[in-house]
Amino acid sequence: MNQDQIRALLEQVREGAIDVDAALARVRHMPFEDLGFAKIDHHRELRHGMPEVILGKGKTPDQVLAVAGRLAEVSQNVLITRADAPTATLVKQSLPGCEYFPLSGAIRLWRDKTVRGKGKIAVVCAGTSDIPVAEEVQVTAEVMGNQVEAIHDVGVAGIHRLIENSPRIAEARVVVVCAGMEGALPSVVGGLVSCPVIAVPTSVGYGASFNGLAALLGMLNSCASNVTVVNIDNGFGAGYVASLINRL
Amino acid sequence: MNQDQIRALLEQVREGAIDVDAALARVRHMPFEDLGFAKIDHHRELRHGMPEVILGKGKTPDQVLAVAGRLAEVSQNVLITRADAPTATLVKQSLPGCEYFPLSGAIRLWRDKTVRGKGKIAVVCAGTSDIPVAEEVQVTAEVMGNQVEAIHDVGVAGIHRLIENSPRIAEARVVVVCAGMEGALPSVVGGLVSCPVIAVPTSVGYGASFNGLAALLGMLNSCASNVTVVNIDNGFGAGYVASLINRL
Amino acid sequence: MNQDQIRALLEQVREGAIDVDAALARVRHMPFEDLGFAKIDHHRELRHGMPEVILGKGKTPDQVLAVAGRLAEVSQNVLITRADAPTATLVKQSLPGCEYFPLSGAIRLWRDKTVRGKGKIAVVCAGTSDIPVAEEVQVTAEVMGNQVEAIHDVGVAGIHRLIENSPRIAEARVVVVCAGMEGALPSVVGGLVSCPVIAVPTSVGYGASFNGLAALLGMLNSCASNVTVVNIDNGFGAGYVASLINRL
Amino acid sequence: MNQDQIRALLEQVREGAIDVDAALARVRHMPFEDLGFAKIDHHRELRHGMPEVILGKGKTPDQVLAVAGRLAEVSQNVLITRADAPTATLVKQSLPGCEYFPLSGAIRLWRDKTVRGKGKIAVVCAGTSDIPVAEEVQVTAEVMGNQVEAIHDVGVAGIHRLIENSPRIAEARVVVVCAGMEGALPSVVGGLVSCPVIAVPTSVGYGASFNGLAALLGMLNSCASNVTVVNIDNGFGAGYVASLINRL
Amino acid sequence: MNQDQIRALLEQVREGAIDVDAALARVRHMPFEDLGFAKIDHHRELRHGMPEVILGKGKTPDQVLAVAGRLAEVSQNVLITRADAPTATLVKQSLPGCEYFPLSGAIRLWRDKTVRGKGKIAVVCAGTSDIPVAEEVQVTAEVMGNQVEAIHDVGVAGIHRLIENSPRIAEARVVVVCAGMEGALPSVVGGLVSCPVIAVPTSVGYGASFNGLAALLGMLNSCASNVTVVNIDNGFGAGYVASLINRL
Amino acid sequence: MNQDQIRALLEQVREGAIDVDAALARVRHMPFEDLGFAKIDHHRELRHGMPEVILGKGKTPDQVLAVAGRLAEVSQNVLITRADAPTATLVKQSLPGCEYFPLSGAIRLWRDKTVRGKGKIAVVCAGTSDIPVAEEVQVTAEVMGNQVEAIHDVGVAGIHRLIENSPRIAEARVVVVCAGMEGALPSVVGGLVSCPVIAVPTSVGYGASFNGLAALLGMLNSCASNVTVVNIDNGFGAGYVASLINRL
Amino acid sequence: MNQDQIRALLEQVREGAIDVDAALARVRHMPFEDLGFAKIDHHRELRHGMPEVILGKGKTPDQVLAVAGRLAEVSQNVLITRADAPTATLVKQSLPGCEYFPLSGAIRLWRDKTVRGKGKIAVVCAGTSDIPVAEEVQVTAEVMGNQVEAIHDVGVAGIHRLIENSPRIAEARVVVVCAGMEGALPSVVGGLVSCPVIAVPTSVGYGASFNGLAALLGMLNSCASNVTVVNIDNGFGAGYVASLINRL
Amino acid sequence: MNQDQIRALLEQVREGAIDVDAALARVRHMPFEDLGFAKIDHHRELRHGMPEVILGKGKTPDQVLAVAGRLAEVSQNVLITRADAPTATLVKQSLPGCEYFPLSGAIRLWRDKTVRGKGKIAVVCAGTSDIPVAEEVQVTAEVMGNQVEAIHDVGVAGIHRLIENSPRIAEARVVVVCAGMEGALPSVVGGLVSCPVIAVPTSVGYGASFNGLAALLGMLNSCASNVTVVNIDNGFGAGYVASLINRL
Repeated sequence: MNQDQIRALLEQVREGAIDVDAALARVRHMPFEDLGFAKIDHHRELRHGMPEVILGKGKTPDQVLAVAGRLAEVSQNVLITRADAPTATLVKQSLPGCEYFPLSGAIRLWRDKTVRGKGKIAVVCAGTSDIPVAEEVQVTAEVMGNQVEAIHDVGVAGIHRLIENSPRIAEARVVVVCAGMEGALPSVVGGLVSCPVIAVPTSVGYGASFNGLAALLGMLNSCASNVTVVNIDNGFGAGYVASLINRL
Repeated sequence: MNQDQIRALLEQVREGAIDVDAALARVRHMPFEDLGFAKIDHHRELRHGMPEVILGKGKTPDQVLAVAGRLAEVSQNVLITRADAPTATLVKQSLPGCEYFPLSGAIRLWRDKTVRGKGKIAVVCAGTSDIPVAEEVQVTAEVMGNQVEAIHDVGVAGIHRLIENSPRIAEARVVVVCAGMEGALPSVVGGLVSCPVIAVPTSVGYGASFNGLAALLGMLNSCASNVTVVNIDNGFGAGYVASLINRL
Repeated sequence: MNQDQIRALLEQVREGAIDVDAALARVRHMPFEDLGFAKIDHHRELRHGMPEVILGKGKTPDQVLAVAGRLAEVSQNVLITRADAPTATLVKQSLPGCEYFPLSGAIRLWRDKTVRGKGKIAVVCAGTSDIPVAEEVQVTAEVMGNQVEAIHDVGVAGIHRLIENSPRIAEARVVVVCAGMEGALPSVVGGLVSCPVIAVPTSVGYGASFNGLAALLGMLNSCASNVTVVNIDNGFGAGYVASLINRL
Repeated sequence: MNQDQIRALLEQVREGAIDVDAALARVRHMPFEDLGFAKIDHHRELRHGMPEVILGKGKTPDQVLAVAGRLAEVSQNVLITRADAPTATLVKQSLPGCEYFPLSGAIRLWRDKTVRGKGKIAVVCAGTSDIPVAEEVQVTAEVMGNQVEAIHDVGVAGIHRLIENSPRIAEARVVVVCAGMEGALPSVVGGLVSCPVIAVPTSVGYGASFNGLAALLGMLNSCASNVTVVNIDNGFGAGYVASLINRL
Repeated sequence: MNQDQIRALLEQVREGAIDVDAALARVRHMPFEDLGFAKIDHHRELRHGMPEVILGKGKTPDQVLAVAGRLAEVSQNVLITRADAPTATLVKQSLPGCEYFPLSGAIRLWRDKTVRGKGKIAVVCAGTSDIPVAEEVQVTAEVMGNQVEAIHDVGVAGIHRLIENSPRIAEARVVVVCAGMEGALPSVVGGLVSCPVIAVPTSVGYGASFNGLAALLGMLNSCASNVTVVNIDNGFGAGYVASLINRL
Repeated sequence: MNQDQIRALLEQVREGAIDVDAALARVRHMPFEDLGFAKIDHHRELRHGMPEVILGKGKTPDQVLAVAGRLAEVSQNVLITRADAPTATLVKQSLPGCEYFPLSGAIRLWRDKTVRGKGKIAVVCAGTSDIPVAEEVQVTAEVMGNQVEAIHDVGVAGIHRLIENSPRIAEARVVVVCAGMEGALPSVVGGLVSCPVIAVPTSVGYGASFNGLAALLGMLNSCASNVTVVNIDNGFGAGYVASLINRL
Repeated sequence: MNQDQIRALLEQVREGAIDVDAALARVRHMPFEDLGFAKIDHHRELRHGMPEVILGKGKTPDQVLAVAGRLAEVSQNVLITRADAPTATLVKQSLPGCEYFPLSGAIRLWRDKTVRGKGKIAVVCAGTSDIPVAEEVQVTAEVMGNQVEAIHDVGVAGIHRLIENSPRIAEARVVVVCAGMEGALPSVVGGLVSCPVIAVPTSVGYGASFNGLAALLGMLNSCASNVTVVNIDNGFGAGYVASLINRL
Repeated sequence: MNQDQIRALLEQVREGAIDVDAALARVRHMPFEDLGFAKIDHHRELRHGMPEVILGKGKTPDQVLAVAGRLAEVSQNVLITRADAPTATLVKQSLPGCEYFPLSGAIRLWRDKTVRGKGKIAVVCAGTSDIPVAEEVQVTAEVMGNQVEAIHDVGVAGIHRLIENSPRIAEARVVVVCAGMEGALPSVVGGLVSCPVIAVPTSVGYGASFNGLAALLGMLNSCASNVTVVNIDNGFGAGYVASLINRL
């Protein structure tokens, strides 16, 4: 029940076409989201310029396809994350125009390529093993309308390579940094730039990395004040927030 | 050594006023930061409109005052975090114009009140015990030039109070959410707004809260995609990043 | 030694067929369970209206069938949890009337459908990935004689969907809430209803969810006072306790 | 805005006393809680027969008194948990009729002693060190209108004392079990009774008890199916849920 | 109801003074502990040659004294563990003959010095900081009737000192080893002797010792097969079990 | 260099057949183990009546067979733990007389069946899932010369079954208790008997059992003073120590 | 751009062959590493006498070969760690002279066998299960130009074997010690030698070893002052640092 | 029994002053350490040029003084770590020449200032809060005969300051890096130098630093291959190992 419907109802009341008790009952049972509350949600959908993303993990190829097909009818752009190869094969056959990114498992249907971000998003990663997560960030940020500057393999143990690339990083409006092992890169990058830095700990490492815990704790304790953190391997989340920031 | 100085040097070389070896030596030893690298830093300082913050914790009142005094000469605004009452007393005596916020332990010298943020920052907290952290967010965001909308005590177990306040939250350009215990509030707020949400886990709770670990893990696993996280009780960091975002 | 045997013994004493010392010795050594102690157990079985449940995990199909077959002779209703597909195939072939629930791995022989619960049990889950656990709750609660109201996919990041469903939830006498990731849903539901809420953390999530630990800690720290918690993924336990409460 | 107000509004519309746009605006902005949603809350308050409890910890004596005084005007019964001795002294002076329980730190104003629970609540604890938590359970359950049967010091290493007391436990409609160290008692009690058992891990212990973590994990892994768990030392929560169950 | 009561009952039955049904009812309701079950406990007390120990920690001096005074009437030997100095002062004043061991906080009333152990118990500790725990072991083992060989400060980083002392250790029937930090000593000692070794991790250490966790894990993973482990700092438990073994 | 060699050397010195410097050099370099130190080890082997056990896990069938074959030449009894089926098949073919225990993966060559233990060892386990670990205890204890009383499936949630079996348990000289999940059984058994109890946490459970951590912590915090603990699933170690104790 | 290039540039400026603006642009954009900073890096490469190592894990055989082939053109020695058998087969076919070490998964191309270390590196391990990690240490140290003394299977539970080997260990200039389970060996070895000891915790163990965590914590808490620690199973890192030390 | 004593014994044998059996008995019982084994220890002491250090923590001022006084008689240099102010006052009064370092709590008696290290040791720390630990490193390294280059406050968030100082760091033969919070500094320094780097995690930080755990894990997972790690806040251990390396 939207405002028009409420208005219509009130007019019926005024005109006597419906009595007060019946009108009261209808108001009483109208879902909350019809009262402006859900507008936030619609607003969000419009503003974001993209539908809900599909998490491919834990779904069969058929299930992914079913959801993706439905979404592709109502939305220009669809993003499926963490899909395996059979899913990708099936989806690409059935939904023309989809790209598959095997490192991250992302499948992307990117028909509306309007640039919505006001600047660049830099996606920086520490080592080549972190690229799958960085790719998820990039695919997400792109499909949400951003120009992405990908800067790979600039880990802190070779600081000169990072500094060499710092001008490219400093041009970005938001920076996403992916790193596993000790997770030190966001702190260094955070000190090099003055914009917000989103840190993504990756599960890259072994032993006392505890599947990304070491990197996660490191990033949460960053001595750079412009760093915030998302979940381990959560490239999608980082790309999503970076996109929101870049639209501001 | 900035570009002008390099140009001057080169011109001296061209004019023969300095020989090549002497010029080489000067170039060889010029600090890295003089080559544009440090500019980033100055740029940062200018852009942020505020000096480095002083962490009061672990410093004696005299130490805090010494640093604060020096900073107050070069900067309009000074923020001291986590200071105890004796420090506050000393600093307020010696540095006229300082405010003390006893809940969070912040001391603020706020002489330049230029608004630099483009919108409001909403600072939301779950319970009254979370207010000290929320206060640190607010004090930080304000001294960095932002209008802050503080919305306290809207924990998820009383969801209607949160929803009632959701229009105020939705008006913000960035939202900071502070919550201890289960740390659920950022997920709910994240679903209500379409802007970036910075979640601050607080150490409020007991037993299996493990001094904020429960809230931290909850926020890192948020099902809302627009949430990023800072360290437990890190109100300053959240206020800082929110300010950066709000200037974009 | 049951009551009849004790009576017989006492009669022998009265009749002088056994002397006091010998009788004393026999009483001294009679097993505890014959003295009414075990009755508690029988009482329990009767009251619960169901036999011990079979945990399918870690048993071969043959082992499950052997136990299930024996139980099906003495009990109307049998529940096997966490069985794999081969076990289900075998059991269904051999025990007519069994249903298999592949999401949760439950096999149910439900011949006595007497309703024993006094009201409804609402089974609420946060996301579609939590449905396998919610299904285990439902299958358990039903076979124990309860009407179940299943409400799926009402996670806290879309709070309006939850509120829309809150009247259905509020009608229940007991609510079971299954959620992974940040595990925030029980706190919100706990605030919406005035009845007991049983929270089931699920292992849904990745990274810092640590296989359900984040959700578990979140639920233990719930700011809603009417929430108690069971083990991660323990849908059976939640359904069991909810059934006990609903019979009160 | 309650139903009467909505009815009045609709009648004004019908009568032309207010035009449709103005009515629409009022409906649009009426708070959500006025639409039946908040009724749940009022309903809860009535049903529970008690106001919000005050958590004394982290509040000054004056703060506690201020809140308690206000609540004592609108509610017959007030419960303050985890208050220290100075707070108790102040509150007792100012609010006649308050009792103080120094072991648990509870302060109770118990003017309406109506029994609302349908049966007894048994509060069982393992050792004398667990009594403070058990006391919090008892004080809570009593002020919520329950008869409480307290059974202390029946730890599992002296199983005969527990069994001796099992008939008293078995008479209860709900059982709350408090135990620290290995936290084994709820499992044994759970096997002795057929009603719901709420387990409260306590922080009693040292070394590898990790402040109650050992007991918490033990209880979550209970092999008795009728056990649910609350946070470490959360006697209030256990007493609260037990009261809800006992009213069913 | 003890054996005499049962005998009396049976004699009443024989004499016809009570009929069978009434007798049956009395037998049915007699407490379990009267039927020989509790004898296990008495048997234990006799065999152990000592009463329950009093844990001093968390009790006031008066509470400790009250319990100790009662126990001193029925038992020759009383052991109070983890008592502070004021408690010791009070107890020593009131109970003549008590010794106080300030390192471990043990108070011992040792009147019956019968040797009950068949051999010696060696109590070995790694460093001087572990002596308080070793003292608790020794005081416990002595008051339970054992000869104790104390060997201190033989940590593994000075292996020759340990080997020099290995003949003394090898003479023992049971060995208790106390060590903090890396907790390596039990493994080395376990390899030097062929008798059971009880390992006591101590909370000695800092940083990554995590209050004894490192030592505890080390001992649980001992490559010596004759090692079992007790809780961190649990000198009493180790001394107790060593005493039980030494009586076999 | 053994005593005979030293004697021979000394006699050569006395006879002038070797000069003092040469003799000194030989003494200086004689291996430490020849000086009685290694005797401890031989002594151990003799006393234990069994060779080193082979850990099958992580070895190929051929590797296991090679070691087992060598040991079978010098020792009457050989025990292989955690061997898989192919290893068992190979070993049984090549070493006649071997038994395979598929639940625990133990392979046993038991030719010398001399009883060396002075009493019985009771091996108690909580649930049927714990039997593999209990079997490893039993196989170990038997091959080391002990009579074993196996008592399975007496978990604490059915306390009467445990009490029924308590006389059998109480007859043992040492008790080994295996339990997963909450690990509560050793505490209860510890209270029922007066002999040493060795607790074996098993990895049975799910979710918050954290692969046996919950049971391990529970057992370390046992309120029964006669309980010591070995590593998770370490049936061999428990059987080994129980055997050592039973020979005392 | 090295000093010669800068000199050349300055000379061009002096000679008027290039104007100031063009020179300025070249200086402005010259990479930082050309200013002496990168020399450190080249210096490192020369000094180390080896190229970057390839981590085989997580790369396909083709990827490994591609990188290895390129490195083999510029470097005499190449080390690939943690490669599986298919990778080894492919690399050995394509790069003649490669050795494969299946226990550790190392592939080594060792053409320049110059000894660069000044003394021996002892590589000590506790049990046979630790040999794969010890092998990685040895392969690394050898390819970096060191003589390695491998001493296996000298765990602390058989201390005489370790002491017997202590002279061989004491001859080394650096010692690397690999141990799983309780990780006690580095402490004992640390006490036997006066040189630096690098401890490598291995993931050998089960249950409460938590995949090497127990050994790691033990080593970090070593009571021997000459011990430093690397990550779990990080044989490469230990061999690398030992090589650096041995060249000093 | 040293070599002279053995020689004397052998000469007595040769001369017939003692018979072979008596001589054998004396050899048989001579302590192991007299046979060259202990020489390692003496050798160590000589080589290290310093006695055992005294850990001041947990000792009374009198205890520290007693040990320090004894050591000061036999050794030129004495180091007391983690002493409080009263201890320092007492020790300085009684042992002339002692210095006290209040940040780290070190007391140093440094009479023999011979330089034994072959190069410099650089001690680098991230922030001013890390200085106490860095001071402990420096005091230790100096008293062991090393020249120390202290470089403070070069945290990774201001990378240019670190790079500016990198030539000073690169001159060192060994580098010790102290850092709390995210512990990223050792990785960056490790990449800047080619010598061994010893990383000391400090307990500086709050929240998810978990008292240094975050920094510890970060350092263990360092992507720089030349980094090894010591315990949290273990400045002494790092200074000790650095000294050993610097003497090589």
